[in-house]
Amino acid sequence: MMTEEMENKHLVLTKSEKKRVVVIGGGFAGIEFIKELDEERYDLVLLDRHNYHTFQPLLYQVATAGLEPDSIAQPLRKLFAGRKNFQFRVANVEKVDTATKVLYTDLGAIDYDMLVVANGTKTNFFGQESIRQNSFPLKQVPHALDLRSHMLQTFEAALLEEDLEKRKGLMQFVIVGGGPTGVELAGAFSELKNHVLPKDYPELDFKQMTVTLVENSDRLLGVMSEFAGRKSEEYLRKFGVEILLNTKMEMLEADKVFLSGNREVPSQNVIWAAGVTGNLIDGFSRENVGRGNRLKTDPFGAVLGMEGVYALGDIALMTHEAKYPDGHPQVAPTAIQQGKRLGKNLNRLDKGLDMVPYAFFDKGTMATIGRNKAVVDLPFWGLSFGGFFAWLTWMFVHILYLVGFRNKVVTFTNWLYSYFTFDRSTRLIIRPFIKAKVQDKMTIEQIG
Amino acid sequence: MMTEEMENKHLVLTKSEKKRVVVIGGGFAGIEFIKELDEERYDLVLLDRHNYHTFQPLLYQVATAGLEPDSIAQPLRKLFAGRKNFQFRVANVEKVDTATKVLYTDLGAIDYDMLVVANGTKTNFFGQESIRQNSFPLKQVPHALDLRSHMLQTFEAALLEEDLEKRKGLMQFVIVGGGPTGVELAGAFSELKNHVLPKDYPELDFKQMTVTLVENSDRLLGVMSEFAGRKSEEYLRKFGVEILLNTKMEMLEADKVFLSGNREVPSQNVIWAAGVTGNLIDGFSRENVGRGNRLKTDPFGAVLGMEGVYALGDIALMTHEAKYPDGHPQVAPTAIQQGKRLGKNLNRLDKGLDMVPYAFFDKGTMATIGRNKAVVDLPFWGLSFGGFFAWLTWMFVHILYLVGFRNKVVTFTNWLYSYFTFDRSTRLIIRPFIKAKVQDKMTIEQIG
Repeated sequence: MMTEEMENKHLVLTKSEKKRVVVIGGGFAGIEFIKELDEERYDLVLLDRHNYHTFQPLLYQVATAGLEPDSIAQPLRKLFAGRKNFQFRVANVEKVDTATKVLYTDLGAIDYDMLVVANGTKTNFFGQESIRQNSFPLKQVPHALDLRSHMLQTFEAALLEEDLEKRKGLMQFVIVGGGPTGVELAGAFSELKNHVLPKDYPELDFKQMTVTLVENSDRLLGVMSEFAGRKSEEYLRKFGVEILLNTKMEMLEADKVFLSGNREVPSQNVIWAAGVTGNLIDGFSRENVGRGNRLKTDPFGAVLGMEGVYALGDIALMTHEAKYPDGHPQVAPTAIQQGKRLGKNLNRLDKGLDMVPYAFFDKGTMATIGRNKAVVDLPFWGLSFGGFFAWLTWMFVHILYLVGFRNKVVTFTNWLYSYFTFDRSTRLIIRPFIKAKVQDKMTIEQIG
Repeated sequence: MMTEEMENKHLVLTKSEKKRVVVIGGGFAGIEFIKELDEERYDLVLLDRHNYHTFQPLLYQVATAGLEPDSIAQPLRKLFAGRKNFQFRVANVEKVDTATKVLYTDLGAIDYDMLVVANGTKTNFFGQESIRQNSFPLKQVPHALDLRSHMLQTFEAALLEEDLEKRKGLMQFVIVGGGPTGVELAGAFSELKNHVLPKDYPELDFKQMTVTLVENSDRLLGVMSEFAGRKSEEYLRKFGVEILLNTKMEMLEADKVFLSGNREVPSQNVIWAAGVTGNLIDGFSRENVGRGNRLKTDPFGAVLGMEGVYALGDIALMTHEAKYPDGHPQVAPTAIQQGKRLGKNLNRLDKGLDMVPYAFFDKGTMATIGRNKAVVDLPFWGLSFGGFFAWLTWMFVHILYLVGFRNKVVTFTNWLYSYFTFDRSTRLIIRPFIKAKVQDKMTIEQIG
């Protein structure tokens, strides 16, 4: 909410003679841009609503008690400790005035010479309040912690529930959306069902625990190859996941999911992984915004029709490459490469050199399904493979890209431990108990 | 709050022919008791308000961003997975009716044959609402997380504060209570000041960050030797901690501490480590309760004047040993030994054997002050030592007693990392921002 007071308040920052570049968002695009940008050439300000970078590809492991939240997050101040001409603020950005080059945040206004919008996407509830209220999104660390606490609380509640129909609702998990997040979550929940939870709750009948993956289209992993989609379906079914293709979630109540084909599933555990939308701040006009609520840019990342405003990563819609007429895939490699490219380009600009247009280097795509099972699409010769070697590849790449040495070591330790013990260790309920479900979500909204 | 509905509701449990032992609290006393008790002889029910065991000696490291919360906690269901005739419930115990042998919880009532009260102590605010509202306690994982988030938030806020007096208040830490918790916290905060935070906040002047330790008596570590007290004072002063002995906190406002001798310290970071009191449930009479709100027991742990009720650990007041006329020290070894003793005794009782009275085996006491510095009192020849070797001993013993193999490995990894990098890694603000300070505390109260 913008107030007049806010418009008149200025964010406290030290100002130098250099041009000021303001970056919104400390995700992959933002941090790679900053690393590349010459610290002597620009005065840099980074804004993020959290004080840490989140390694989103492993959020689902935090949500399913496999990893500590601290292992997949890196404090942004730590990441850029020692950097010159750099200031970071924990702030929520409200709107931008591109005419006067002023950004408005909850901490006050801030002038910029160049603005880099890299604040990614948020969960798309398609305007349906019932979905927003009754399902769990999974885009941030607090979401993952809420889902973890909620899941464990539903089993504690199931122990006390004498009404069989209600108990079923507590033990049935429905994941809507068969993309990578949905597939990886379904795999992780089935591992909890097969190896972990029955030991924790010997009093419950785990035949009643179901994991259902609902997908609108006719196959899983639409962003990957036909082979990957088919293989992941095969693996998930083997793990006991029920897969409903060509199925739509039509309505959601607090304890029941209504699917197309007149099917109803009692469930208090619905995870919404069916879409994202650009995390747009106010101040952009309709012409700036394209498909998926992304900002249309030129081949250098400059937002079309605006001066000094750039967009990077998931929120950028760059359509100059013939192979990607609808923009690049919204994945980490795109964000990393675009961030680096723009960092280099702004250095060139300052030296009086021409900027180099962005070209996507496809490194392939992968998704893990569970123990010893993953699928990988390589970018050449249409090569795809699945199984144990794909799973090793997935682990290696994720450890490699995880930010922070300590995080790599702790994550690897946890994975080794889980592999040999069939256990997922971090089963703590830290957030308030189940009756506070709605309040919890309010907290998330406040955080951002 | 007890309602009529609650009194008539029964906790859902499976019941066998065996005698039912109900344990309140999954701390050291509770878990060691359970491990010792023969699973074939009794029907066991464990109640705790959290679903995990907390390793309290390392809570201060979670509060100061040195360890993840998951490393010092162990899910209770995991700890007792596979145990027969065992049921665990996450419940808040409200009161006991020792005449009818019924325990009332927020989940309903539960009958018992034997009751083991092992729910420890809580922070003693001595009835002062201003202290409760304006200071941070440190007894549970949520407390530690709140303190960590709050601390980091005050530095974020200090960056934005242009009023010098107010900024000072955000950067000054006051710890009240010179016992082990106070001393260890003061050491950890001084490490943050000396090695970590100045790198994170180069814009702040860290001469303004102060760590003050306030102690009522004339020395630190009253529970340890004169030597340990003097040494820890020396170490803390060397690390830059201000130590005020013979000083009382007289009043506390939201942003100011009033100390005896007319001294005022502006501070929004006050940690209250000045005392604990037995975490008593309703249903005990005045005669049952002694010094420190502890339950008076006989040499076997049976609460005096009651049938089938036992007390263990911090909440037990056992005065039969001439060396401990005021009860045993409220430390982990007491709880562990008493738990084991009672477990063995109830097995003996069931076999028709006599019970063996408890005898405290003093293993010594230790406290860590910081990098390479700790103090150790050994139980024989009045031997005490401090310094690097004491610090190694402290680490070894804490890893040894930490519950769970994964926790040991992850904690050791973190300590190694911190030692060589001078870093404390888990600097995430996960809870809502500073304006939610009061609301946060309400959450804690709800949790327990």
